[in-house]
Amino acid sequence: MNGSESLVRTLLASRVDVCFANPGTSEMHFVAALDKVEGMRSVLCLFEGVASGAADGFYRMRGSPAATLLHLGPGLANALSNLHNAKKAGSGIVNIVGEHATYHLTYDAPLTSDVEALARPMSHWVRTSRESRQVAADGALAVAAARKGRGRIATLILPADVSWGPAYDIADPVPVPPAPDVDADAVVSCARILREHSKTALLLGGRALRGEALNAAGRIAAATGCALFAEANNARHERGSGRVPVQRLPIIVPAARAMLEGVDRLILVGAKEPVAFFAYPDQPSILTRPGCEITTLSDIDGDAEQALIALCSELEVSSARPVVSSRTRPRPPVTTSRLSPADIELALAATLPDNAVIVDESISTGRAFSAVIQDSAPHDWMQSMGASLGYALPVAVGAAIAAPDRKVVALVGDGSALYTPQALWTMVRENLDVTVLIFANRSYEVLRGELARVGAGNPGRRALDMLSLDKPQIDWCRLAKALGVEVGRADSADSLSTELKRGFANQGPYLIEVVI
Amino acid sequence: MNGSESLVRTLLASRVDVCFANPGTSEMHFVAALDKVEGMRSVLCLFEGVASGAADGFYRMRGSPAATLLHLGPGLANALSNLHNAKKAGSGIVNIVGEHATYHLTYDAPLTSDVEALARPMSHWVRTSRESRQVAADGALAVAAARKGRGRIATLILPADVSWGPAYDIADPVPVPPAPDVDADAVVSCARILREHSKTALLLGGRALRGEALNAAGRIAAATGCALFAEANNARHERGSGRVPVQRLPIIVPAARAMLEGVDRLILVGAKEPVAFFAYPDQPSILTRPGCEITTLSDIDGDAEQALIALCSELEVSSARPVVSSRTRPRPPVTTSRLSPADIELALAATLPDNAVIVDESISTGRAFSAVIQDSAPHDWMQSMGASLGYALPVAVGAAIAAPDRKVVALVGDGSALYTPQALWTMVRENLDVTVLIFANRSYEVLRGELARVGAGNPGRRALDMLSLDKPQIDWCRLAKALGVEVGRADSADSLSTELKRGFANQGPYLIEVVI
Repeated sequence: MNGSESLVRTLLASRVDVCFANPGTSEMHFVAALDKVEGMRSVLCLFEGVASGAADGFYRMRGSPAATLLHLGPGLANALSNLHNAKKAGSGIVNIVGEHATYHLTYDAPLTSDVEALARPMSHWVRTSRESRQVAADGALAVAAARKGRGRIATLILPADVSWGPAYDIADPVPVPPAPDVDADAVVSCARILREHSKTALLLGGRALRGEALNAAGRIAAATGCALFAEANNARHERGSGRVPVQRLPIIVPAARAMLEGVDRLILVGAKEPVAFFAYPDQPSILTRPGCEITTLSDIDGDAEQALIALCSELEVSSARPVVSSRTRPRPPVTTSRLSPADIELALAATLPDNAVIVDESISTGRAFSAVIQDSAPHDWMQSMGASLGYALPVAVGAAIAAPDRKVVALVGDGSALYTPQALWTMVRENLDVTVLIFANRSYEVLRGELARVGAGNPGRRALDMLSLDKPQIDWCRLAKALGVEVGRADSADSLSTELKRGFANQGPYLIEVVI
Repeated sequence: MNGSESLVRTLLASRVDVCFANPGTSEMHFVAALDKVEGMRSVLCLFEGVASGAADGFYRMRGSPAATLLHLGPGLANALSNLHNAKKAGSGIVNIVGEHATYHLTYDAPLTSDVEALARPMSHWVRTSRESRQVAADGALAVAAARKGRGRIATLILPADVSWGPAYDIADPVPVPPAPDVDADAVVSCARILREHSKTALLLGGRALRGEALNAAGRIAAATGCALFAEANNARHERGSGRVPVQRLPIIVPAARAMLEGVDRLILVGAKEPVAFFAYPDQPSILTRPGCEITTLSDIDGDAEQALIALCSELEVSSARPVVSSRTRPRPPVTTSRLSPADIELALAATLPDNAVIVDESISTGRAFSAVIQDSAPHDWMQSMGASLGYALPVAVGAAIAAPDRKVVALVGDGSALYTPQALWTMVRENLDVTVLIFANRSYEVLRGELARVGAGNPGRRALDMLSLDKPQIDWCRLAKALGVEVGRADSADSLSTELKRGFANQGPYLIEVVI
């Protein structure tokens, strides 16, 4: 057995059995080990940002890390943007990054770079394996590091000679410390706040937006009258009929501040203190009003579910009945004029299959999707937590692999989609059940608003040129077909409903260019 | 005047007048400044790796840096792979990377990351501008840093409040230290070696492969009988009829070692000691034979041209007549069967217009292109110096903008091209005179060879699957058309010749899918 084979077997022993791969020469022994060892599903990605984004989506659905296989420093560099998004989302990922043979590094060959330095900004854990007999143990540590807390980025650097050198053993899984116990004092404090102060809100994040945690939050809201808010973007939010409705903070600063204006006390449950995405010259960074008291029930690595259940107990509201959304399948819109965001939300709500996973990078178009979708079929809603573009298509790949029995729906702006279009190819190769909506406004539309909001003045032609994607127009249907995807185009409410039904009925990738 | 405007004006004063841009919210004041200030050509790129690659190509042709405009850490991250290539090529680039307002960083908003740490591995110079009145001075320093030596990567991080805050002045250009004087002792030593030892070769790199430097090397070779070699990959190599022919070292280790086997003394002129791209279990990293004496005439930052001219003087061969290639325009191949690399080289040599700039990322297909092209029209040949894929299409963008009067020809493997296909859109937007050949072998073909060379054994289905791009096949004509490019397909020598003539006659981007 060589180092690579011991690593593949160790990953499997630690329950990492999917690898999103873009290999090169230095990873050839790892690739060869995939033949020898049964059980690792290797998914080829034609760009490394697809691999890292897919691993993010996989973790969000499976709750267990996948591996990536990346080629040296530059391969890792291409993965960093979506690793940034994954890190902010609390997704666990094990990156295996090939490196030159240890003795070859001194020669500064073309692909030589400082791989550890590249890895550190977007990783919680970085290690270079130095010895082929040690790589199994390093692999088990990497998986444990990725499983820590809500999920971490672990990067294991694998020199070629460590990969091909002799190894004898695989390594047993390394135990992962459980989440810390619920903070009983915090539970008591939060219960007192909820009892004594009417203008209180829970800000839910992470696991607090799912399952029993969400039900518990609903009970608390029903019994105490507190408001339930979610962060502007969320890694995985269970919404739709039968679920407790939670209002997301708006992205736009004045709107977010208006929503929080009436809140005197904010209780954080798996969420961070709400702040603006960007600074603006005339707006504060903090979204709560001055004097708002902020208390943490459970931090982002804590067990939000147990904390909320304990809070229910403390409040004696465990049998309260939460308000949940009821299904009011809207009739699809019938206008045939230019599509508005409201039309799109209506059409989506009217056709969405049960238990879909929506991966949302709709930016300007989908910003206001909210109440209508909330009253449609139950679904999971996943957003970019790091706000780096090129997130949705790769995350949809990983989500579809982790949850093959669910329809994945990717909502993507045309600007965002063009950062990582290679993901479409992997969707076809793996026949993933993903319906992609490309919102083709032929513009970095969000930035037109931002140009005004930062007070940059009245933009002229040269500035607007930097935000415009219409010269030349991108033909998304043609582009997707080039990569093997079945496609349709919608430019009216009617045609969008038709296309959505076609896409949702399809048992594989389908892309709709939504012309707006 | 605000910080951004002072920076744009300072860049122009330092002769940086092209900016390859992919901006976001934090760069909006910089974008607004482009309206106010005349003279900066801003080129929109839909992925940051296109911007950094374009800046690389621009420097190779213009010898003067362009700027990039990138959005925070993740935007920089997407640019790093082609910055790696540019750094290895000795290309000067000034990266302007937007950052959150200084006071906003503490809130850890979604796009927050350690931008300096991300920049350092691929930059020679990194600075965060802390004060709007200082940003002009920082900008001038960044340009000077980018102009140092053969060219450097300078990264200036620009927080939003520094961008929008008040500034009063622009900064004057900062003087750049000239290249060090030619090492007279090295000239004398190298002359003695050339006189006394017949088995001597010059290994030419960087500027030694162009203009008077190349002519001087040719005189030395003609007079002394020494061999002229070039590194396996070169940033810009003047070839074709009328130029001194220089033999490139092969990529494959045994072939390179065979070529250097008869060399007792190797003189480095702007080149590094020749080493293997990768380590292989049964091959040494160093390509020269044991005992070969290596002497440096001029290091990679030295003035190779003056050093070679001085060596001519010392050898008293300044009026020797170098051997140059003579034009023997080959007849185009006429086979109509499956295209071979030899067919492609013949067709290219038969049709190539004078003074074309060839950007070569042809990997397995173009590896052997050599003698036939050498006897065709004079041209510049540019290769990836960092070996990270996704290099050629972006570099072609920058080369075409720097040299609008020359035909740019990009030779790209289908695997490589799919890392940065967004470059095609910018070619159309800017109507760049680029003919793109996509070598569609539907495979990471080079890795099939590498799998054997690293001794990874007989690959099975799962390993070969990781190297295969044929499920689904990518339709490059359709993909390029989707991005606005005119296209043609060639699957025989006849059709390739026809398509090449069509592409070369076209005054704008044209893509040929070469099916092999």
